[in-house]
Amino acid sequence: MAFSPALARLIDAFRVLPGVGAKSAQRMAFHLLQGERAGGAKLATALAEAVEHIQHCQRCRMFTESDYCEICRNERRDATRVCVVESPADVMALEQNTDFRGHYFVLMGRLSPIDGIGPEELGLNILRARLADGPVEELILAVGATVEGEATAQYVAELAERYGASVTRIAQGVPVGGELEYVDAGTLSQAFSGRRPL
Amino acid sequence: MAFSPALARLIDAFRVLPGVGAKSAQRMAFHLLQGERAGGAKLATALAEAVEHIQHCQRCRMFTESDYCEICRNERRDATRVCVVESPADVMALEQNTDFRGHYFVLMGRLSPIDGIGPEELGLNILRARLADGPVEELILAVGATVEGEATAQYVAELAERYGASVTRIAQGVPVGGELEYVDAGTLSQAFSGRRPL
Repeated sequence: MAFSPALARLIDAFRVLPGVGAKSAQRMAFHLLQGERAGGAKLATALAEAVEHIQHCQRCRMFTESDYCEICRNERRDATRVCVVESPADVMALEQNTDFRGHYFVLMGRLSPIDGIGPEELGLNILRARLADGPVEELILAVGATVEGEATAQYVAELAERYGASVTRIAQGVPVGGELEYVDAGTLSQAFSGRRPL
Repeated sequence: MAFSPALARLIDAFRVLPGVGAKSAQRMAFHLLQGERAGGAKLATALAEAVEHIQHCQRCRMFTESDYCEICRNERRDATRVCVVESPADVMALEQNTDFRGHYFVLMGRLSPIDGIGPEELGLNILRARLADGPVEELILAVGATVEGEATAQYVAELAERYGASVTRIAQGVPVGGELEYVDAGTLSQAFSGRRPL
């Protein structure tokens, strides 16, 4: 099927992207070659630069090409509030949808001893150093409500409390706009027991 | 939202791909940075090389990094049979699913005067030169059964007949595995009037 070795290599290389199989990879390659060569060249440059230069922020583990990410370097942000999330995508989502202007700490995963992911792999030694170092007044847990997320939340909460930070967790309950009838049993039971005075 | 200018550039660059919006672009960028840096670097290289070197075959207009594509250069293929298709993806599909071992001619589009796409834009002067040049015994039309595809087929057929090639067209009818009940009216009427003796 190799009409052109360069084309075959390009189609094959596209399959590294999440959710991209043989058909989509071919479609992407032809799309770029047919009318988006400038865009393709731009993507090649951005990609080469990103995989070479983007590392983890030494303070919060977010992606950055500097030693510290823009949030950690921004002195107008409140360093006494640290929001702990599982992934860089979570940081993006919170920045876009909340007015939180503190700092983050990105675990890049969650505790999963069965996969060999312990506190070390999640950079919790860095978080510990930070808790020891400066005053963290509130540590906000914004990890997923999965089994591993719960275990991670528990672990981080104990760590933070040891250093005198007060720990909060983002609310669990019925999604906004959700009809009770279609909410799953676990969420409904959580939401009911977590009811609050109006 | 720029935590890292390099990351912002990468996410933006991914949006050139077909069907990739802001969310998918972000997912692709994080996926590569989190665990597929080698694959990302390979993609960057393949892409840079492809947009720089891949051109159209001078004989059939298929993508190739040489002057002539591998099919046109392959002397074991039958140059007296030329299959005319709309796009490089059609060549791939026919190669994968048929035993056709002749040559191709890729229009890279179809006649559409309203969009300024005439015979010149489809490289029909190249096809004409080829018909004049060597003996083409059978010209197979494998263009889509759309209005513009029909117009294109008509035009190419007349051109080929002028040079003495016999013209065939791939069959239209009920798809294999299709139930009559769910076949659209146009296809069913075509299939019925195009019935063949068993």
